[in-house]
Amino acid sequence: MNEFNLIQKYFADASFVRKDVVIGIGDDAAITHVPPNQNLATTTDTLVKGVHFLDNTSAEDVAHKAIAVNLSDLAAMGAEPSWISLSLSMPSVDDAWLSAFSDKVGELTQYFSVQLIGGDTVKGPLSITITAQGFVPQDSVLSRDGAKNGDWIFVTGTLGDAGAGLDILLKKLSITDVKARDYLVKRHQNPTPRVLAGTILRRLASACIDVSDGLLQDIMHIANASGTGVILHLDKLPISKELGNNVSDLNQALEYATVSGDDYELLFSVPEEQKSSVQTALDSYSIPYTCIGQMTGATGKLDLRLNDKPFTLEASASLGFAHF
Amino acid sequence: MNEFNLIQKYFADASFVRKDVVIGIGDDAAITHVPPNQNLATTTDTLVKGVHFLDNTSAEDVAHKAIAVNLSDLAAMGAEPSWISLSLSMPSVDDAWLSAFSDKVGELTQYFSVQLIGGDTVKGPLSITITAQGFVPQDSVLSRDGAKNGDWIFVTGTLGDAGAGLDILLKKLSITDVKARDYLVKRHQNPTPRVLAGTILRRLASACIDVSDGLLQDIMHIANASGTGVILHLDKLPISKELGNNVSDLNQALEYATVSGDDYELLFSVPEEQKSSVQTALDSYSIPYTCIGQMTGATGKLDLRLNDKPFTLEASASLGFAHF
Repeated sequence: MNEFNLIQKYFADASFVRKDVVIGIGDDAAITHVPPNQNLATTTDTLVKGVHFLDNTSAEDVAHKAIAVNLSDLAAMGAEPSWISLSLSMPSVDDAWLSAFSDKVGELTQYFSVQLIGGDTVKGPLSITITAQGFVPQDSVLSRDGAKNGDWIFVTGTLGDAGAGLDILLKKLSITDVKARDYLVKRHQNPTPRVLAGTILRRLASACIDVSDGLLQDIMHIANASGTGVILHLDKLPISKELGNNVSDLNQALEYATVSGDDYELLFSVPEEQKSSVQTALDSYSIPYTCIGQMTGATGKLDLRLNDKPFTLEASASLGFAHF
Repeated sequence: MNEFNLIQKYFADASFVRKDVVIGIGDDAAITHVPPNQNLATTTDTLVKGVHFLDNTSAEDVAHKAIAVNLSDLAAMGAEPSWISLSLSMPSVDDAWLSAFSDKVGELTQYFSVQLIGGDTVKGPLSITITAQGFVPQDSVLSRDGAKNGDWIFVTGTLGDAGAGLDILLKKLSITDVKARDYLVKRHQNPTPRVLAGTILRRLASACIDVSDGLLQDIMHIANASGTGVILHLDKLPISKELGNNVSDLNQALEYATVSGDDYELLFSVPEEQKSSVQTALDSYSIPYTCIGQMTGATGKLDLRLNDKPFTLEASASLGFAHF
């Protein structure tokens, strides 16, 4: 079967359809329309079998993660997602796998109102590259480099769940509570990009990133880009009851919350004068958030505290996901 | 080394810089500006080692091909390229390879005035996914489906060179003329996307595609999308002297010209009333072209002629590159 038929067969009818797509799947390139007064946000992420997902991950979970991590990058810029392109490298044409994968792509494009506008299917080791595009108002920028000394550091949701979920799958962590175990595994396999939070924050936060490499690594991406330092109060980190009640001690929970990645929560800095606006806006949409620290003037310095005392994490040397 | 440092080290300063890029490499997503009255063209193509390029292909040639095939897709839509994103899967961090690859990316972004706006580097088998974006005027569409019965079929440049070049590298074709051999290999390794021709054709051609899968397969993509049939006059196919003078006979030259892919010439249909305008416009930019046939009303039918007589190609059963 050739590439043309593959895309037609599995993906052409799977996607949500948008009016701003002039030409979608089936030509040499997609043609789309960006609204006036909007800029375009573009991000690309690749997931490789055995590196970014376990060998036995289902087609649905692979599709979910590939789309989620890309929409999470858009969310971190405050962008509203519009279109995705998919490049799928597969060792062979597996009808059941492709059907399940494309069904999930269809479901998620519906959920997020994005259209699959094109793609490529190639023969090779299993990997998925998605390019996601979206819109941001031309007068609003939410980048990594806007944090200032004194800005408050917030994070949405809870931290460490995805890392614990991965360790459960790898049998490095054993949890007897079935509900908690399923919750943590699902947080690893089916992350939810904080799309709505991103659009709310784009006029309120001074800097933003999504937590993909781990809290400590990602907050330092903001600090290094912004020329600030960081104080984090580890006793304030949002830990789910599913994680907190099922690991051996506080230190293990903190390790997951600080150095494991893939939570895809938004981590952002907020100037003092916007703090109450941020809280009101996120409250009004029932988006959970926690203030976990503050930016400092000590450029590049990461100052960890537990109950206001300096704290050294046993695992902090590794600082999260290393790509190589 | 982490992804962040890799992209910063090798790619952040390599690229041509454009004024319409608000945020480039280094954040969660790129932010760019699409001019008013322009639509956005987006295409994604993946090249896998051992499938789309030979194992011993140089880093420079891999970079060249990855960029060229994507810009060729934009050219086939009449789009002017603006930005590219790069996802690079590599088994390990090879400094020499990455330096050579990024130097070539830098050189080609300068040549085509496109900016590398982002990317991803992951650990995995060597493959390269590029997403290219560009602009097309909102009132002009150059797609595959606009051909009409009676439209003339044109192609730029010459056909079959890249296929012969690949066979030389695979030692399936032996050519003693060193200059011709080098020319054909270069046509395979370093294709030139017909960017300028695409922008000229967008108001004149009725349909367009780039020749990537092979002439017969690609002309049928147009025919099937447009609901037309095709007559091709094989004696009119543009064959380079490097190919024509160095293969065993006409049949071998025709086989390369019709069923081998990767020439990245533009194949397009032109209504009778635009024929002289197309010729004048392409002549004025010294872009070589040949009229090789005509669209017919026999939907989906491919009618091959040699000196006006029906002709059956020995190799025509395979019809070009099969993706699986």
